[in-house]
Amino acid sequence: MKKKKQKVNAAILIIGNEILSGRTQDKNVSFISNWMNTQCGILIKEVRIIPDVEKTIVKNVLDLSKQYKYVFTTGGIGPTHDDITSKSISKAFKVKYKFNNEAYKILENYYGKLNFNKPRQKMAKIPEGSNLIYNPSSAAPGFKIKNVFCLPGVPTILQSMLPNMKKFLKKGFITHSKSIYLKTVESKIAIDLNDLQNLYKNKIEIGSYPFFKIGSVGVAVVLRSIKKKVINEYYKFLLIKIKKKKIKILNF
Amino acid sequence: MKKKKQKVNAAILIIGNEILSGRTQDKNVSFISNWMNTQCGILIKEVRIIPDVEKTIVKNVLDLSKQYKYVFTTGGIGPTHDDITSKSISKAFKVKYKFNNEAYKILENYYGKLNFNKPRQKMAKIPEGSNLIYNPSSAAPGFKIKNVFCLPGVPTILQSMLPNMKKFLKKGFITHSKSIYLKTVESKIAIDLNDLQNLYKNKIEIGSYPFFKIGSVGVAVVLRSIKKKVINEYYKFLLIKIKKKKIKILNF
Repeated sequence: MKKKKQKVNAAILIIGNEILSGRTQDKNVSFISNWMNTQCGILIKEVRIIPDVEKTIVKNVLDLSKQYKYVFTTGGIGPTHDDITSKSISKAFKVKYKFNNEAYKILENYYGKLNFNKPRQKMAKIPEGSNLIYNPSSAAPGFKIKNVFCLPGVPTILQSMLPNMKKFLKKGFITHSKSIYLKTVESKIAIDLNDLQNLYKNKIEIGSYPFFKIGSVGVAVVLRSIKKKVINEYYKFLLIKIKKKKIKILNF
Repeated sequence: MKKKKQKVNAAILIIGNEILSGRTQDKNVSFISNWMNTQCGILIKEVRIIPDVEKTIVKNVLDLSKQYKYVFTTGGIGPTHDDITSKSISKAFKVKYKFNNEAYKILENYYGKLNFNKPRQKMAKIPEGSNLIYNPSSAAPGFKIKNVFCLPGVPTILQSMLPNMKKFLKKGFITHSKSIYLKTVESKIAIDLNDLQNLYKNKIEIGSYPFFKIGSVGVAVVLRSIKKKVINEYYKFLLIKIKKKKIKILNF
């Protein structure tokens, strides 16, 4: 019997003082969110950014893992003293923080026995009972324990690892989207958008976002739904309303 | 009597489906965080990104406003149907969501009586008892109620409004930072960084971040402390250790 697809939600937990302090611009939220939706039909419903503090990590991991089907953490699984995600998550789930044989071998093989020093060995210490998430870029694996998936903070490495998580994830409905760029201001189309949103209630999500680019000011209207048909229907209605008001559509 | 400065912490609450879905790259976290630290000595300790859903906004605003000295929200105070921050925050604090006379006049004056349509009027509706945060870019004010400050989502507009919040904020200690870029890998300096972190315990925060740029791979070591003296002291120790290991310092 084929299982029925359903909505699958998840949260992202960004762990790292450098993001919180503003030093580093996060790039993982938008990538993970897009990837999870388009590849797995998983919708990110909440993101938290927290510092490298053990009790804060423990609290947030437990909190989010209860509320959401999956939690994806980024950051804090490297070799230095400020990388405390693996240890903190072991604490959160009350399991041992210890060497994983397979991870140890992968890393030893990658660095060579002579260069496999203590800090590098540390990256093989993860919560007992975890599954590994293989890393095709720089060897050091991420891990999955219960419904929590731990990934590194460096965007290129993280991105290379996402496909290796697929086997652990239940697929949900993909949310489709369509954007239309209008040469207008929000207040000129607000009532139309509101009327149409009421017409479709929960079947579609309509976002309206002003944008400012050199030479053009306008509004991006974004339609999102798990049903392409609904988006296309709504789009037609929207075009009629826009035509009536003589609003120009911009092509980007 | 001069009041003694102290540590002042805060949280940012990003409200907006477009950030959560990955469509739009958030730029407000790093800007607010930097600005609050350097201008007001306020440290951001947590960020949450949530959808435009009333009960979610209510829950998170209450939650964060209890935990932190200040909460800064972004997004959802425009003229369209998906702008529900003001209404939701009224609900959170159980106060009326109604026209603010001053905000109404500012907007009416800005748009002119003839063009001041319903969607634009909506931007003058805020929680009763709020203070206005003036907007030098596009008139529509933000507002402050209790310890929650509500700002728009468009980065350039938000940025222009931050100085107008200063009068409401208690100043804390500014956290200073110094970065040093090393041509090495994390595992080569991990033990040194750990030793030095232990030496200084809570007086300094030491971050280690690998970076990959065209032509150079390295590690950025970031020292953060409210005391410049501590940073300088630590920096000297670090330089000695780096010299011993013959690690090259990169200049960016």
